[in-house]
Amino acid sequence: MRDVAIIGCGMTKFGRRKEDLMDLLAEASLKAIKDAHVEKEDFDAVYVANMMAGETVFQTAVASSLVDRINLIPAAADRVENGPAAGGSALKNGILAVASGYYDLVLVAGGEKMSTADTDIITDLVATMTHPTAEYIHGVTLPAMAAMLTRIYMERYGVTERHLAMIAVKNHENGLKNPYAHIQRACTIEGAMSSGMISDPLRLYYVCPISDGAAAVVLCPLDKAKKYTDKPVRVAGFGQATDVQALQEREDPAVLKSVKLAAERAFKMAGCGPSDIDVVELHDAFEILELAESEDIGFFEKGTAHLAVEKGVTSINGDLPINPSGGLKARGHPVGATGVAQVVELTWQLRGECGERQVKDPKRALACNFGGFGNNTVIHILERGW
Amino acid sequence: MRDVAIIGCGMTKFGRRKEDLMDLLAEASLKAIKDAHVEKEDFDAVYVANMMAGETVFQTAVASSLVDRINLIPAAADRVENGPAAGGSALKNGILAVASGYYDLVLVAGGEKMSTADTDIITDLVATMTHPTAEYIHGVTLPAMAAMLTRIYMERYGVTERHLAMIAVKNHENGLKNPYAHIQRACTIEGAMSSGMISDPLRLYYVCPISDGAAAVVLCPLDKAKKYTDKPVRVAGFGQATDVQALQEREDPAVLKSVKLAAERAFKMAGCGPSDIDVVELHDAFEILELAESEDIGFFEKGTAHLAVEKGVTSINGDLPINPSGGLKARGHPVGATGVAQVVELTWQLRGECGERQVKDPKRALACNFGGFGNNTVIHILERGW
Repeated sequence: MRDVAIIGCGMTKFGRRKEDLMDLLAEASLKAIKDAHVEKEDFDAVYVANMMAGETVFQTAVASSLVDRINLIPAAADRVENGPAAGGSALKNGILAVASGYYDLVLVAGGEKMSTADTDIITDLVATMTHPTAEYIHGVTLPAMAAMLTRIYMERYGVTERHLAMIAVKNHENGLKNPYAHIQRACTIEGAMSSGMISDPLRLYYVCPISDGAAAVVLCPLDKAKKYTDKPVRVAGFGQATDVQALQEREDPAVLKSVKLAAERAFKMAGCGPSDIDVVELHDAFEILELAESEDIGFFEKGTAHLAVEKGVTSINGDLPINPSGGLKARGHPVGATGVAQVVELTWQLRGECGERQVKDPKRALACNFGGFGNNTVIHILERGW
Repeated sequence: MRDVAIIGCGMTKFGRRKEDLMDLLAEASLKAIKDAHVEKEDFDAVYVANMMAGETVFQTAVASSLVDRINLIPAAADRVENGPAAGGSALKNGILAVASGYYDLVLVAGGEKMSTADTDIITDLVATMTHPTAEYIHGVTLPAMAAMLTRIYMERYGVTERHLAMIAVKNHENGLKNPYAHIQRACTIEGAMSSGMISDPLRLYYVCPISDGAAAVVLCPLDKAKKYTDKPVRVAGFGQATDVQALQEREDPAVLKSVKLAAERAFKMAGCGPSDIDVVELHDAFEILELAESEDIGFFEKGTAHLAVEKGVTSINGDLPINPSGGLKARGHPVGATGVAQVVELTWQLRGECGERQVKDPKRALACNFGGFGNNTVIHILERGW
């Protein structure tokens, strides 16, 4: 298998955007292509991550539309979907395609247009990724699942609502420093704790917003990357794993087995462990997930991540900055874009291009993209390739 | 890149099925796993091809559901979508994943449940893969596009309605010999030519039906295949290419550039040419496509394929049997399943297991899976690996 590098990346601002899905995907892709200093005619393949364009904007085969829109024809083009981990899955397949030796230059773009639909429609569309007969038809929603997980954490590990608010405050503060973030507004612990109830005990500030946006990266073999950039980012490892789909059927619903196993696989491939990671992007669609993922990846003992948050360990200037981008909470969560956006942020962090939200001199980074309610997780580990 | 083999395959009967999508995917997958003589716990990854489950049966992340349903957890699982070429795309990515050396045992399943929606809804959903602003919003449908292509063929190359009917008669005859086919009924030239008009000049018998169904294959490295089977089928080559999306913007709408280029790429990889192919499955969602694809792949000079049909060249006992399965016309076209079903049929043909519809002693086979209206094509070339 060949080593693969990220040689360019781009993003749109996330938020409620006027542009349509194809505009957003095109903007992010063209920025990534420009950043990579490659020629359009050299592209072999394009992977597009998207979850719900068929339902929200009546478009399928969006990868075919994107290559047409940005003139990458005749490059191969496929859409990859894995719920909100579509971005991670598209990246993994783009990386495998380059690693195999079959393709040399690949674009991976993720995007979603969600603001065209009402919130209750979006909540329903997101829920279509739950178990079709054990969950979805009974009306379960993702906020309800996250609320149950939060309750377990509160009862078992002493997590309080104040801890959830502290994560929100941190991520809003980071988002304020990120020009691409959907929400660029500070919040206070008191403000978060008095926000509206979504699904008890989850308030508005403990859940991510509904966003439009797109992100893209350009991949090539590491040994060719220096032709294009002085700062290629090496894909050191990646791992993906699935778990039982219905939450009620899992041995312990507070243990994210797919996260644990995806992390093990990624660390094994990268030849390193949790203590070697300098900056992290986690999938905090709900703030409780930032805690649970950071534990199941192995950064903290189970049931102790909230103590690390208290001590500021996960802040930009802490020992292990988590979600310097603002995370899904503040950067936003256009579902198909998120997994790609995480890797874009980490690429910028490794290259030292993050301005006010720059983590100090990171050498290795990890992104965790979480599909379903934790039943399909994709993790990537990146490191400086120079 | 490692050589990849197909070591098992399975299919459901296509048609209007009572079972739901997950039942169909599970049935095809379990048959393929049984056929491959592999252990479930050895699976590394699953790729699921599906176009419209979000819209027709309100299910997304269907790959995560499938691994749960058939107990392949914790294998990685992704859905791949490329309109009706989703199957070809999922296969290509499964093959690349094994070829890369990262995965050793991969299941590729394709399925679609279409009969839950009315015909006009399906026609609309299929049209969502056309150009979002130049075509879809103006109400174009795929039958209308195929009618235009047919008209060009009639005016330019002397194709008559009788030729379309002859293809239908051939494919119905083949389908009658295929226990998996949706339509198992012979038809006559006169019957086809007096069937109802769909989109002038296309009558009912010149277009494929709307079907439910699923198909699956198991892939592993060729050098490990002999552990599982005496008759591994080698993936000799594959190619995918895109073309301008809007039909009106193509230089010549009768030339399927993505088919030409995908074929060139596949032949180059396989180290052979059109004359080395013994049996073919083409994407005849509309009968005119069987002609156009067979020409643009290089089996016949442009504008002459209908003469080959007249002479029986493409019949099961002809020099170049095309669609011995009955093709999309008679086997049916559950869109996400089709690309996988083509490869299942060809695997059976190479292994000599096709009973009444068996082509005589084929050594090399080609499948053409056609997405959009010919703007994203995936071609696979298979050969005996024993």
